[in-house]
Amino acid sequence: MNNKIIISAALTGVLATRQQCPGIPYTPEEIAKEGKRAIDAGASILHIHARQDNGMPAYDVETYRRIDEEVKKLCPEAIINYSTGAIGISQEERIHQIDALQPDMAALNMGSMNYAIYSAKHKQFYHDHVFANPFKDIQFFLERMNKAGTRPEMECFDTGHIHNARPLIDMGILEPPFQFSLIMGVLGGIPATTQNLVHQVSQLPEGSHWQVIGIGKKQWRMVAAAITMGGNIRVGLEDNLYMPNGDMASSNGDLVKEATTLVRTLGYEPTSVHEAREILKLPVKQD
Amino acid sequence: MNNKIIISAALTGVLATRQQCPGIPYTPEEIAKEGKRAIDAGASILHIHARQDNGMPAYDVETYRRIDEEVKKLCPEAIINYSTGAIGISQEERIHQIDALQPDMAALNMGSMNYAIYSAKHKQFYHDHVFANPFKDIQFFLERMNKAGTRPEMECFDTGHIHNARPLIDMGILEPPFQFSLIMGVLGGIPATTQNLVHQVSQLPEGSHWQVIGIGKKQWRMVAAAITMGGNIRVGLEDNLYMPNGDMASSNGDLVKEATTLVRTLGYEPTSVHEAREILKLPVKQD
Amino acid sequence: MNNKIIISAALTGVLATRQQCPGIPYTPEEIAKEGKRAIDAGASILHIHARQDNGMPAYDVETYRRIDEEVKKLCPEAIINYSTGAIGISQEERIHQIDALQPDMAALNMGSMNYAIYSAKHKQFYHDHVFANPFKDIQFFLERMNKAGTRPEMECFDTGHIHNARPLIDMGILEPPFQFSLIMGVLGGIPATTQNLVHQVSQLPEGSHWQVIGIGKKQWRMVAAAITMGGNIRVGLEDNLYMPNGDMASSNGDLVKEATTLVRTLGYEPTSVHEAREILKLPVKQD
Amino acid sequence: MNNKIIISAALTGVLATRQQCPGIPYTPEEIAKEGKRAIDAGASILHIHARQDNGMPAYDVETYRRIDEEVKKLCPEAIINYSTGAIGISQEERIHQIDALQPDMAALNMGSMNYAIYSAKHKQFYHDHVFANPFKDIQFFLERMNKAGTRPEMECFDTGHIHNARPLIDMGILEPPFQFSLIMGVLGGIPATTQNLVHQVSQLPEGSHWQVIGIGKKQWRMVAAAITMGGNIRVGLEDNLYMPNGDMASSNGDLVKEATTLVRTLGYEPTSVHEAREILKLPVKQD
Ligand SMILES: [Zn+2]
Ligand SMILES: [Zn+2]
Ligand SMILES: [Zn+2]
Ligand SMILES: [Zn+2]
Repeated sequence: MNNKIIISAALTGVLATRQQCPGIPYTPEEIAKEGKRAIDAGASILHIHARQDNGMPAYDVETYRRIDEEVKKLCPEAIINYSTGAIGISQEERIHQIDALQPDMAALNMGSMNYAIYSAKHKQFYHDHVFANPFKDIQFFLERMNKAGTRPEMECFDTGHIHNARPLIDMGILEPPFQFSLIMGVLGGIPATTQNLVHQVSQLPEGSHWQVIGIGKKQWRMVAAAITMGGNIRVGLEDNLYMPNGDMASSNGDLVKEATTLVRTLGYEPTSVHEAREILKLPVKQD
Repeated sequence: MNNKIIISAALTGVLATRQQCPGIPYTPEEIAKEGKRAIDAGASILHIHARQDNGMPAYDVETYRRIDEEVKKLCPEAIINYSTGAIGISQEERIHQIDALQPDMAALNMGSMNYAIYSAKHKQFYHDHVFANPFKDIQFFLERMNKAGTRPEMECFDTGHIHNARPLIDMGILEPPFQFSLIMGVLGGIPATTQNLVHQVSQLPEGSHWQVIGIGKKQWRMVAAAITMGGNIRVGLEDNLYMPNGDMASSNGDLVKEATTLVRTLGYEPTSVHEAREILKLPVKQD
Repeated sequence: MNNKIIISAALTGVLATRQQCPGIPYTPEEIAKEGKRAIDAGASILHIHARQDNGMPAYDVETYRRIDEEVKKLCPEAIINYSTGAIGISQEERIHQIDALQPDMAALNMGSMNYAIYSAKHKQFYHDHVFANPFKDIQFFLERMNKAGTRPEMECFDTGHIHNARPLIDMGILEPPFQFSLIMGVLGGIPATTQNLVHQVSQLPEGSHWQVIGIGKKQWRMVAAAITMGGNIRVGLEDNLYMPNGDMASSNGDLVKEATTLVRTLGYEPTSVHEAREILKLPVKQD
Repeated sequence: MNNKIIISAALTGVLATRQQCPGIPYTPEEIAKEGKRAIDAGASILHIHARQDNGMPAYDVETYRRIDEEVKKLCPEAIINYSTGAIGISQEERIHQIDALQPDMAALNMGSMNYAIYSAKHKQFYHDHVFANPFKDIQFFLERMNKAGTRPEMECFDTGHIHNARPLIDMGILEPPFQFSLIMGVLGGIPATTQNLVHQVSQLPEGSHWQVIGIGKKQWRMVAAAITMGGNIRVGLEDNLYMPNGDMASSNGDLVKEATTLVRTLGYEPTSVHEAREILKLPVKQD
């Protein structure tokens, strides 16, 4: 399985709306259908944020439970990865769906940074907030994931974030196999260059699994660079709405299909869901 | 002046006390004497935090003014660099000494991160706070430094922090010559390794001046690695209390003297203050 | 022209035969037709070795002259780059076609190394020779190219090869704009990894133009990695006979077409020949 | 033994003469005395070339045997490493002392390159030869070392040289523990920069031991950079005649003493010979 690459699909996120991109799913049924399209096109992992039916973010267990049911109906073996991020929501409300649903994975933000958007055209910042994840918060979420048997997908926006794993490993609350996401290109974090990706990968604890998450226009370059290094990749409407040719994607399936083509162009093959579970040492359904 | 290295001395900081290290200066007179020792031993830049006579931090203009006078009496040409960092103090109080005294340089924190201390022995964190420097704060301090004609010394704790300079350059409020400090080894930021230092240096805008600031025990290694790359260095009781042989330093002069020895061992020469002013394009006193 | 990538096509080489790949051109007419297919598919530079009509290598001026005429008939503006490499041939015979035809570019090998092929299956070496290019040879070829007004395309198989340019620059016989080819994946030289490509690029003199040449199966990965860095690329039957999907290429045009697709997938556009001439500061035909 | 650094002393070499540096040893007795000075100053490994009594190189077994006896008299436990390099001497004569004396280690050149010296002042090359080490030669020397139970010290002058180990490992004739020397700064090979050293170290097979060998004036910088990375180091009159302050060394002991000081300045300790044998898994004398 040496030449296999695991594709994640980030199906919906919280920011983009159907006004911006009609393919973005809101309801549990829509999310499940998008999940199916992504899996059919080559994805193995589905990263999901809950939404209300009007597209606003949802954080309640009930919505997550309906998503869980719908997704498992259409994609019974898919690796499910729920968001735990939110602004203005209590920690308890960010983690309760993990307790309740015990997904395969959940996102764990590994450090603090500025999270900003700057417009060179207008010479001003459009977002400018401090993305605050002190160790006590990381520890809180990690221990709840451990209790749920959920694998933390460690989201790292800069070099320091990767190394923030070290005290957690030393404390015995973070254990291998390690699952890292290298997020490239957020202003405030490490920029999306191949040189930076090579550096980030060089910093990982030995034997770690990793994927690249490229934000915005440079996503396809980061995806390509990661594949050339044998790394895993994430695409999906949460990260980037556009196909390589600049057209808006009509579904997550379109984006995953492009990713699969790129994987094959570079001499690799996307994993099946089953293979991804074996590689990542996640529970494999018995036949 | 190709083989010249500029040494900064961080004379006092805010954290360490005379209980920990008797050499730490508190009063303006003490700070000036330590500055003189540092300059005599090879330093060109003095990085200074104000203290009350009992060692507690001081933020008032009056204390800074007394420091300014005392230091200039003993070290008339020294490049003076004042801290602007503080916790629980208003922005205005962090910058008013720059307005008032128009020093050559002042420290400008370039991004946010966790700032933590972890004890492997006790398996717990001793500090764990979010060091928050959103762009609006960076912009605030930068514009006030510009008004004062003070060169911003950009303190970068991770790769993203270096690139946070880019929108500021694009807005036209940050102009060359650029002065970067690469701070290595704070938990939450980039670790103190030679590989990481090489990476940080590769990220700088072309033509930047840079120095390394290594925190704690690995300081001497980072200083040596920087010198091998022709970079500038900072030592001083703010960063590290110990001599290479493990003894506590009795003064900033001792630490600078060790740094000068290391600079010469590796085939370079410390600048005179006058040379440092020329290299950094800071005002040179007319004779 | 910031988002433009120059594609070179290495049309024929000397090793591969029509028994291995029926698309390989031998005669001047065949080479010109393959050149046309490559240019039509997005290439701007044609790298050419002469062949006898039976496929054996040719080194005589007459054959090169016929190639020159045929290629210019079909591709009047194409940037022409002739090989100067050969084993068992005098230096004079390796350079006389450059004197005679004054092509835009010619390949200049920049250092020595083992040039080997190892079979893991048979646990033995199939080729094992010392590729010897001492400085006196490099100087000889370079001075003859200078006389012909031909741009040296510096072929670098390892890090030292790049730096071998330094004494030549110092002697004043090598002048900007510099044109580097980073050849990755020959056993004896630097392996074909993205990390190594990043390192090689970091070593180039400022303002250099560079392309990657990946040998064999890893070519498409090196091509992709180079594009993500904004570098130029070379494909063609000399370097690799296979399409990304593993099928044998039926012509250089097929390979260039795939390269063009990859360039566009990653957000760049191949140059026209005219744009490539402008970027590289090569003579532009007046309209 | 985590903070231990192994120092090698290259006692004499073949090029430098007593006219250049009076401290260079020629006779077996002189070499042994220099070895003793090096060991007493902190070295654990002695790298030795044989010389005739007039300083010319010697390749005969008899001279090596006398060296072996004299060195073991004065430094009974020292790790002994004999040169196998020579120009214009048969392979058999380059290896016969290894057969006969079965030293702990012997130098094994791992690839080909230009080996040149350029004078910027005179704008000309003073040396310009192809240092030819094809795989068949590497294999020849390696198999003879294996037969003698001698550890190959793999001398790598560029990135490709490190990877030339891979087919030898695949063939089963090169086995761990691997011992690499990273030689920095020969014109034709990889230049002596900290960035390049970091890259070379990143290329080593996992678990390799390595030391840096810096040639000429930049040696002390490479030594310092290696120590900051926890790597081993080599100094000695073969590599560099000068102390950090620019004075000529009067003995190998002086150079090793400086190296030991630098090791300690950077928070490490030189190994004893006994510790070096344990770390490198070389035979340890029973008490
Ligand atoms: Zn998300
Ligand atoms: Zn400070
Ligand atoms: Zn060719
Ligand atoms: Zn030697």
